[in-house]
Amino acid sequence: MAHRILTLTTDFGWSDPYAGAMKGVILSLAPEVTLVDLSHGVAAHDLLDAAYTLAQAYRYFPTDTIHLVVVDPGVGTTRRPILVRAGTQLLIAPDNGVLSLVYDQEPEAVVRHITSTHYFRTNPSQTFHGRDVFAPVAGWLAKGIEPEKFGDPITDFVRFAVPKPKAVAGEVRGVVLKVDRFGNLITNLTPTDLPTLAPESTSLPAFSPTVGKGNVTAVRRAYAEAAPNEVFAIWGSAGYLELCANRASASRLCGAERGAEVVVILTS
Amino acid sequence: MAHRILTLTTDFGWSDPYAGAMKGVILSLAPEVTLVDLSHGVAAHDLLDAAYTLAQAYRYFPTDTIHLVVVDPGVGTTRRPILVRAGTQLLIAPDNGVLSLVYDQEPEAVVRHITSTHYFRTNPSQTFHGRDVFAPVAGWLAKGIEPEKFGDPITDFVRFAVPKPKAVAGEVRGVVLKVDRFGNLITNLTPTDLPTLAPESTSLPAFSPTVGKGNVTAVRRAYAEAAPNEVFAIWGSAGYLELCANRASASRLCGAERGAEVVVILTS
Amino acid sequence: MAHRILTLTTDFGWSDPYAGAMKGVILSLAPEVTLVDLSHGVAAHDLLDAAYTLAQAYRYFPTDTIHLVVVDPGVGTTRRPILVRAGTQLLIAPDNGVLSLVYDQEPEAVVRHITSTHYFRTNPSQTFHGRDVFAPVAGWLAKGIEPEKFGDPITDFVRFAVPKPKAVAGEVRGVVLKVDRFGNLITNLTPTDLPTLAPESTSLPAFSPTVGKGNVTAVRRAYAEAAPNEVFAIWGSAGYLELCANRASASRLCGAERGAEVVVILTS
Repeated sequence: MAHRILTLTTDFGWSDPYAGAMKGVILSLAPEVTLVDLSHGVAAHDLLDAAYTLAQAYRYFPTDTIHLVVVDPGVGTTRRPILVRAGTQLLIAPDNGVLSLVYDQEPEAVVRHITSTHYFRTNPSQTFHGRDVFAPVAGWLAKGIEPEKFGDPITDFVRFAVPKPKAVAGEVRGVVLKVDRFGNLITNLTPTDLPTLAPESTSLPAFSPTVGKGNVTAVRRAYAEAAPNEVFAIWGSAGYLELCANRASASRLCGAERGAEVVVILTS
Repeated sequence: MAHRILTLTTDFGWSDPYAGAMKGVILSLAPEVTLVDLSHGVAAHDLLDAAYTLAQAYRYFPTDTIHLVVVDPGVGTTRRPILVRAGTQLLIAPDNGVLSLVYDQEPEAVVRHITSTHYFRTNPSQTFHGRDVFAPVAGWLAKGIEPEKFGDPITDFVRFAVPKPKAVAGEVRGVVLKVDRFGNLITNLTPTDLPTLAPESTSLPAFSPTVGKGNVTAVRRAYAEAAPNEVFAIWGSAGYLELCANRASASRLCGAERGAEVVVILTS
Repeated sequence: MAHRILTLTTDFGWSDPYAGAMKGVILSLAPEVTLVDLSHGVAAHDLLDAAYTLAQAYRYFPTDTIHLVVVDPGVGTTRRPILVRAGTQLLIAPDNGVLSLVYDQEPEAVVRHITSTHYFRTNPSQTFHGRDVFAPVAGWLAKGIEPEKFGDPITDFVRFAVPKPKAVAGEVRGVVLKVDRFGNLITNLTPTDLPTLAPESTSLPAFSPTVGKGNVTAVRRAYAEAAPNEVFAIWGSAGYLELCANRASASRLCGAERGAEVVVILTS
């Protein structure tokens, strides 16, 4: 237990005292834990953004890392707090679908409804379960309480479907899942959806993805291969096709944001 | 001393190297300390914002946590550096009122003027006492030097009064203390100011708080109870009445910012 | 090795999962390391901003601290990954000039080309060497692998020249290196460039620096000495002349950004 790691993913931003209060509650219970800010910059109330952010980072952590996720528009209602064992990782979150991408990656995940309220702070507020419910549960878990002590497994947990690409009549239609800080448009298109464009292909077919007003030219292997203001496609580090520009924002160049449709026309 | 915790609250933002330099100085003196970013996003030079941020988080930390607060518009002048024992917590800050809300919560606080300049970096700059004065004092304190070694207690420390609500002729007037990332308007109204609206009340009186152009409808128990774009009141996690909207910004809906007056008319 | 410290400086921002993924990879290899966020707010793709940020903070850390710098517009091309011993510090970065200011401070620095690819993640992506190349190298280094195991020294590493002031005909011309969060304009002018204005001078000559539309009045010793909206000069904590205002943004008052020319006319 000496080097238990605990990450935080919230939509609290980096200015307000909310994340700090949670850290205090956790450290009061488990002063030896190593806290890691995964992100506090999730878009406010945005469960898909939170799910994506978490899914791109959680699996790189050591065995038995605890991931605390507090993006919680239903705080104060009857939505349940849950504790999940997913492969080598542990996750604590509201049961609002925010772990949907984790469930996709870990079909054997065990989801427990946290019902042992004696691990909560006394008189929890109705608006800040991050501090009063989730942080103390995380602290007790880091301290060594076994997951099964917090509540029984459930199977009716909330899970939303991430949009899947559709193939019709020579074209494949996907969407932009995420726009990152650089303006890269991360789509939901995987090599399985576009086998003739997959990273291992040696010769690429003619193709023309369109998004917004973007004129996508090619699939490239590195950002620096592209001309200035050229929008190109690349197989990104998240496993998805990304539309990018070299030292510029594809989002701005294409006028496309999250949710924009991406149409790939494949001509053989 | 093995797991001494040290938090940082500054207005340095998250891009500049200032917080990083402070962390380096602290870790050079006390490499085993656990550093916690409480917030670096305090509004620039804003003592009330810093005082509020700190007050909402510091008390959740374990005994003997050190809280370093560097929001310091008077750096380089004769304003004093201080070291404070407040209940179970230790605080280091400029003597400019930034700890006023801590003093309110801890009337027995002992405030020391830090005069032992041999704990400072040699040739401290005139513009960055965070790095050259406060960080080394924090490092030495974390390393185990006793608080009394840094200087003698003072009683004439700077303390500002946080605005208090006023009750006149059937109405109570408060102000917005803080607008958080979600656009929630956190007022200075407590259950004591509005006993008939207090959280434990079972039937609420008619009431109509107004702020900006906001039309506040009800006191609710959870954000998700409200209709879209409805502005409502809730007893928030900080102990104050907050004006909120469900997945929307009450600040934007009301056109109200920090300092806006909140008028609550109580009709019995 | 018990308290090895590892700092992160990136342009990934504070919302995306990239820094979190890197932290996971590092902690999987070296779970006892102390991670320190130096900055993730470097301007996107901006090597000078990254070099400046790092140079202002790295030297304050304890001996054998590892500094991981990932600002990497050439990711996926043939630009080399490097491992540098500079004085008491270790640095890992792409060989794109981002360490130029470190080389200036440490002429004896030993720069190694990291060629031992078995320390990388298997099948590294072409777009995220931070996660797949640099983070694992940092993790192995933190775990105790000796620097010479990663590759041989090179001397043809990339190094850019930071702009130097020019003295001509009674005036000295410099540039703004950095605008910080407060709007302070940090120039490249040092006491050596302006000996008659240097901090130890007891009487200052008449001088008039101009930048943008700024009307700079005086060299002051503390921000709070200045009148409202007065733009003044001060010898800053980074060792450079800064143009500032008291609780206001000199950048806004002068209409000047990074790269703006600063002309100092010295009249004796």
